[in-house]
Amino acid sequence: MLDFVNVRAGIVVTGTEVLTGRISDANGPWVARRLLGLGVDVAHITICGDRPDDLTAQLHFLAASGVDLIVTTGGLGPTADDLTVETVAQFCRRPLHLDAELETHIAQIISRWQQQRSEPTAESSQAGTRKQAMIPQGAQPIPPVGTAPGIAIPAVTEDAHRTPAILVLPGPPRELQAMWDTAIGIEPIAAAIAGRGDFREQTIRALGLSESELAATLRTIEPGIDGVDELEVTTCLRRGEVEIVTRYPIDAQAAYDALAGGLLEHHRTQIFSVDGSSIDDLVATALQGRSVATAESCTGGLIAARLTDRAGSSGYVMGGVISYSNDAKTAMLDVPAELIAEHGAVSEPVAAAMAQGAVGRFAVDIAVSTSGIAGPGGGTPGKPVGTVCFGIALAGTAPRTRTLHLPGDRAAVRERAVTIAMHMLYRALRSDRRADGLG
Amino acid sequence: MLDFVNVRAGIVVTGTEVLTGRISDANGPWVARRLLGLGVDVAHITICGDRPDDLTAQLHFLAASGVDLIVTTGGLGPTADDLTVETVAQFCRRPLHLDAELETHIAQIISRWQQQRSEPTAESSQAGTRKQAMIPQGAQPIPPVGTAPGIAIPAVTEDAHRTPAILVLPGPPRELQAMWDTAIGIEPIAAAIAGRGDFREQTIRALGLSESELAATLRTIEPGIDGVDELEVTTCLRRGEVEIVTRYPIDAQAAYDALAGGLLEHHRTQIFSVDGSSIDDLVATALQGRSVATAESCTGGLIAARLTDRAGSSGYVMGGVISYSNDAKTAMLDVPAELIAEHGAVSEPVAAAMAQGAVGRFAVDIAVSTSGIAGPGGGTPGKPVGTVCFGIALAGTAPRTRTLHLPGDRAAVRERAVTIAMHMLYRALRSDRRADGLG
Repeated sequence: MLDFVNVRAGIVVTGTEVLTGRISDANGPWVARRLLGLGVDVAHITICGDRPDDLTAQLHFLAASGVDLIVTTGGLGPTADDLTVETVAQFCRRPLHLDAELETHIAQIISRWQQQRSEPTAESSQAGTRKQAMIPQGAQPIPPVGTAPGIAIPAVTEDAHRTPAILVLPGPPRELQAMWDTAIGIEPIAAAIAGRGDFREQTIRALGLSESELAATLRTIEPGIDGVDELEVTTCLRRGEVEIVTRYPIDAQAAYDALAGGLLEHHRTQIFSVDGSSIDDLVATALQGRSVATAESCTGGLIAARLTDRAGSSGYVMGGVISYSNDAKTAMLDVPAELIAEHGAVSEPVAAAMAQGAVGRFAVDIAVSTSGIAGPGGGTPGKPVGTVCFGIALAGTAPRTRTLHLPGDRAAVRERAVTIAMHMLYRALRSDRRADGLG
Repeated sequence: MLDFVNVRAGIVVTGTEVLTGRISDANGPWVARRLLGLGVDVAHITICGDRPDDLTAQLHFLAASGVDLIVTTGGLGPTADDLTVETVAQFCRRPLHLDAELETHIAQIISRWQQQRSEPTAESSQAGTRKQAMIPQGAQPIPPVGTAPGIAIPAVTEDAHRTPAILVLPGPPRELQAMWDTAIGIEPIAAAIAGRGDFREQTIRALGLSESELAATLRTIEPGIDGVDELEVTTCLRRGEVEIVTRYPIDAQAAYDALAGGLLEHHRTQIFSVDGSSIDDLVATALQGRSVATAESCTGGLIAARLTDRAGSSGYVMGGVISYSNDAKTAMLDVPAELIAEHGAVSEPVAAAMAQGAVGRFAVDIAVSTSGIAGPGGGTPGKPVGTVCFGIALAGTAPRTRTLHLPGDRAAVRERAVTIAMHMLYRALRSDRRADGLG
């Protein structure tokens, strides 16, 4: 733990569907990011099922570990297995009471929904509404976005019954996220995080840099940096990229600058971003004023999906072809059948022709293509599973190609191929800008 | 907690990158699924950063909660921030010693890698290898798949130093998963889970069924079922579908059958699977012996990506077009420009023409299309954000269309549209089989 962190929080994610791995939790990471962004340190995230004893045990653990704030997510629905409010109230020794105003408010929301869906008002929903309007003594409700209100419970600082502040939020990520800003501004929560520190977080991203190479570089440069102990450096592999995230108090800026400078010196060709930009950000910026299309085989639409993931991408994405069959490569991308017969579908000449075909068919400035063997079947001694050929075509120039052997299973090969394609797009766009005298 | 569960486990996920929400954890859910599959109940999942004190606190919490097994993931790398083995050893009061055989084994793996990448053997990697070959007293190493070995530590049952068995596994999901079967067979772990129960888990899936409707149905049918208390029913919304998962001891089969029968009776049109099959499974089966193509606008390649996610999908997916621009709809899918001018790109006539165009261009049996407004921009009063038009074309028949208003942000609208498209594909394929006299 770093000294500059004054306020610590714990996050409790509830839900048997999360605990048993049937859905992956989006709330823990989201709340953690927000708390860190506020200068609050996150000590623990715990996940429990819809069982009051386990939830109570986790609340005791977090309170005993000395956190100033606990945020819980989930378990606020109208049904019997939603037990968070009751359990939290019992943990805090605060009896529940009906908030009549809140009950009316929730009933109005439900009746509006039912009118839209022309459903009759069910007796069951009245019981559910009443359940959702029960509030622990001394707590403040947070207005619902769906039907479930949040709850803010003040900290108790007397030693005998010491409990941290508790923020109870619903499970649906859309509701939780829409309620966040209100929730952290509400008195019991604002008071709990008032002592937070003032720090920065910076991210450097690299491609083609192994974690052990990076560790060796850090061992080389860190001893020479004054105040290096104030930097909390975390490295992680993500989609084939390495991400180096450093948190530090504002007055350790010089130490961070020295670290960042040392990393750049050692890995200039591998580092592609020092300001937190992702490759997706860089590609989107580089595509402003241009147009792009995709020609995908083994990635099956994932490159196009990633490009169109961003709002505003319709300004530069014209479209793409998924040419899974050889016939589709010929019919939709003008890849000569003889070329496929001669070199095989997974080959650089075919990848080049696919990219060129996409440039022609979609009348775009640039196109990227993939043709590969994602597995588990289809590998040969010469072209094992994981072999992926990439093509980049810029209108009016000869296409460039590359072949890589990517590790992992089908999903990993596909995902990594998409990341490589994004980097090839970026490099081609950047060097093209330079040729234009624009970059 | 259900009575029939005899063995409980806790999972500790380590890594600052997970705790701080920069990467979403895949290991907790994966290990939870495997443990449940073995008949071991999962009580808690906890996530901590690369800080030994927090990890120690979580180990104490889980041990105190009475679990029989703790599985840790991550923190086994060669670098200084990887602290799991040291911390776990200290928690168990087991001094570390160097396993010389293991050190040689890891060194061989690294040297093979370095030869492939033609890197010199670094002095730093020797220190890293030695670190990874340190094993707590009385523990057994689990052979590495990457460079990090796992560790199996036996439980201590004497009251004074009671600790559960601990299984220490690496963070990279590919390595962890490849080591799992060996890990659970190793003596200290096999002994810890020997008393596990014999139970079943069944999954029912429905589309267009709200959680509150489902809750009302459960309240109606559960009181009439003998032994209903032995069923642990969890419901969750996932990609617009509701999933109803029930765990029960084998001798409660009759109670489960009564529950499943009651649900089917109330929601026959909404339930599409009672045997755990996903819509992806059903579509893949229905496509055997047929061919499919996609014509996507707002989903931007996600339908094709989902169809090609499965091994063997090249047997029936011929390809697809992402027609993000109007020109692409006309040039690549033969949608008449006048049709777009008259109805707008987001309209049922255009969705119908896109699907028909894909059937023609790819010469397939069936095609599905989407055209919609994923947002955040582009909405109009008549066609607000979330409006998506779907088309289905079967070769030789008139296309069918549908318009829906989907809730949520850009990602949610796109994801839900993909699910709806999968269901439309399935329904069309199923009714077509029936017309053939095959279904």
